[in-house]
Amino acid sequence: MHVDPTRVIGDLKELRALTGDEHGAQRVAWTDTWQKARTWFTTKLEGLPVEDHVDAAGNRWITLKGDSPQALILGSHLDSVPNGGWLDGCLGVLTALETLRAFAQEGQPPLTIKLVDWADEEGARFGRSLLGSSAFAGTHSIEAVRGRLDKDGIRLEDALRHCGVEIDRFPEAEAERVNAAAYLELHIEQGPLLESLGLPLGVVLGTKGVARHAITFHGQEAHSGSTPMNQRRDALAAAAKLALEIRTIARRHPDAVCTMGSVKTFPGIVTAIVGRCECTLDQRDLDPAVLAQMFAEAQAASHRFAAEEGCTVEWSRIWGIEPVPFHPELIALAGDLHRLPSGPLHDAAEVARASIPTAMLFVQSLKGISHNKIEDTREDHLALAIEAYARLAVRTAVWVLHRPPAS
Amino acid sequence: MHVDPTRVIGDLKELRALTGDEHGAQRVAWTDTWQKARTWFTTKLEGLPVEDHVDAAGNRWITLKGDSPQALILGSHLDSVPNGGWLDGCLGVLTALETLRAFAQEGQPPLTIKLVDWADEEGARFGRSLLGSSAFAGTHSIEAVRGRLDKDGIRLEDALRHCGVEIDRFPEAEAERVNAAAYLELHIEQGPLLESLGLPLGVVLGTKGVARHAITFHGQEAHSGSTPMNQRRDALAAAAKLALEIRTIARRHPDAVCTMGSVKTFPGIVTAIVGRCECTLDQRDLDPAVLAQMFAEAQAASHRFAAEEGCTVEWSRIWGIEPVPFHPELIALAGDLHRLPSGPLHDAAEVARASIPTAMLFVQSLKGISHNKIEDTREDHLALAIEAYARLAVRTAVWVLHRPPAS
Repeated sequence: MHVDPTRVIGDLKELRALTGDEHGAQRVAWTDTWQKARTWFTTKLEGLPVEDHVDAAGNRWITLKGDSPQALILGSHLDSVPNGGWLDGCLGVLTALETLRAFAQEGQPPLTIKLVDWADEEGARFGRSLLGSSAFAGTHSIEAVRGRLDKDGIRLEDALRHCGVEIDRFPEAEAERVNAAAYLELHIEQGPLLESLGLPLGVVLGTKGVARHAITFHGQEAHSGSTPMNQRRDALAAAAKLALEIRTIARRHPDAVCTMGSVKTFPGIVTAIVGRCECTLDQRDLDPAVLAQMFAEAQAASHRFAAEEGCTVEWSRIWGIEPVPFHPELIALAGDLHRLPSGPLHDAAEVARASIPTAMLFVQSLKGISHNKIEDTREDHLALAIEAYARLAVRTAVWVLHRPPAS
Repeated sequence: MHVDPTRVIGDLKELRALTGDEHGAQRVAWTDTWQKARTWFTTKLEGLPVEDHVDAAGNRWITLKGDSPQALILGSHLDSVPNGGWLDGCLGVLTALETLRAFAQEGQPPLTIKLVDWADEEGARFGRSLLGSSAFAGTHSIEAVRGRLDKDGIRLEDALRHCGVEIDRFPEAEAERVNAAAYLELHIEQGPLLESLGLPLGVVLGTKGVARHAITFHGQEAHSGSTPMNQRRDALAAAAKLALEIRTIARRHPDAVCTMGSVKTFPGIVTAIVGRCECTLDQRDLDPAVLAQMFAEAQAASHRFAAEEGCTVEWSRIWGIEPVPFHPELIALAGDLHRLPSGPLHDAAEVARASIPTAMLFVQSLKGISHNKIEDTREDHLALAIEAYARLAVRTAVWVLHRPPAS
């Protein structure tokens, strides 16, 4: 089976020219530019013996029927963040297309090949990422998104309806899981690890679990000039200790990360000791036990620092998700690639949560930058990734056909 | 000479009822409420053999002529912050009034006694504190305040004109310095030191010098999920180290304080490593050498922490003032009181900068709180302070009359 990476790279550049501007990609889901990308994608299907439909959650499915109804699903997302890069999401869709083309080239395949273009992976407009794939996986709550507004005050329901999608019919997208035998996705790493290791490619072990909390230290606002150092209850001091301690907590585990991304000080003026300090903590690891341990350690540390500084501390949960490991046999099929967890979430995690065997390849991101117009990957690395993905698809097809029937 | 503290406390309560509301004192300079306070003050002068005038900067002078034109000046300010306390400023003015009454009670005094009610000590409306006293001292720059707006867009010049004050005539207020022989002020401490020592009173060594800087750490914004701990350039980490280090720097000196009052993180979202962190530093001490050393140490530490975290750091000066020591002989006249520096600035500092021998008494503030309606001081402590101030005034009058003429 032969894939042509130059065709994929050519398609990506065509899409960039059509749906990007001087600030980057503008294919925000549910906008006209996103629909324009999907219309353009239709032209790429000409001459292929495929069926094309959009499910109840706006995910688009291109089906190449095989001898078996069992389906190998290949996909990613065409939607982008505003001012996004030229590879995030669409690399996976166009690589899936090239792979589907290669299967089609050889006549009716022994199993069904489906390409999926997930709807609204980014959540850029309404703040809910993985929208389409979570509807597919049945992990989505309609009530949690109903009534969400974009920055112009347009309701999510109305934006979806504009694209022919009714939010109340989302659960019908779960029907697409019938006969789903495996799922493969290629994505840019969006991080600096592969580049720092000098590697073009990696295979993803799974997506890390995430625990996000808001932490508020309460001290005593007081005059910066009249309050002696030993009589202060400085909420910033407690927060500063925690900002440093979370790094120590993360470094005890090889792949764990802990980030304090936001600190707000109140009253936040040069002449007052900070009486209240609000901060955020984002903790991630692939191992649920590590995640739980890091959370407990950060909590204990925050209480210790609060006590040291005469402050109190409150925690509230912002959001969290369990780690989602990918399928060990599919990971093994990827061959001798470096194995790494994914910090960012991906549609593949939703598919895996629906108990569909899933694997994912990462290609190196230059400087680890994404969600930015300067996001980039070397073209020779893209070519290696496209070829590795097609090889993995063939091996996975064989694996699906030969695995014992589910008990 | 006899003073009656209960009369002062009664006057303070009367003023509170007239110019405060459920949120606290509302005598913001240049407002109608402030003018109402001054009109009320006129009623308190009835029957006193005094002359009453407002100088070119809006400071009000009540003159009790003495045998000598040499003047002992007693004063503070009637203006308050919005939602202020019942003692800040007005305690000093009404204690000065009671002291002047006591001098008047005994017939024409051997030297002239002047009461001054400084205009706009707080700077609450236009952001320039010590406005009237700095005009008196000749340390004021008209150009630095011209065109300043309050939150309603009213110009400082227009607000002053509404009260009969022309900003271009400010320098004429320096004429009030003629014959000024000494200045005494009583103020609440606005800090917790005297309370923590169990002392009702203290005598002030001077106002601390202040160095205020804005410090910005530049790192690299990056995804909190995909960026390994060892590849981060976290601007918050550098700032957190500095937030803790400035405390160590301050604690090397008995009276020094260093405060980080504001921290801002950019982009400041839960999912991104902080790429830029802006913070403020306020450093104070009575000794200029200590102030300079603390500044140098904080700068060096910031560069060290920036380097450790792969960041850069920039400093910019917000504002600063040299320490202003009060007069050692007047401090000695206060007797066996605890001596402490003042962190907050006071009108007394401006008077001292004009080379007029100055001293200041502090009375304990409960919980160290001021600029708030819960600001308070025990009435027995107020009584002790009022009596101590009157005693100091008598001793200072004697000191002025017996000191050798200036060479």
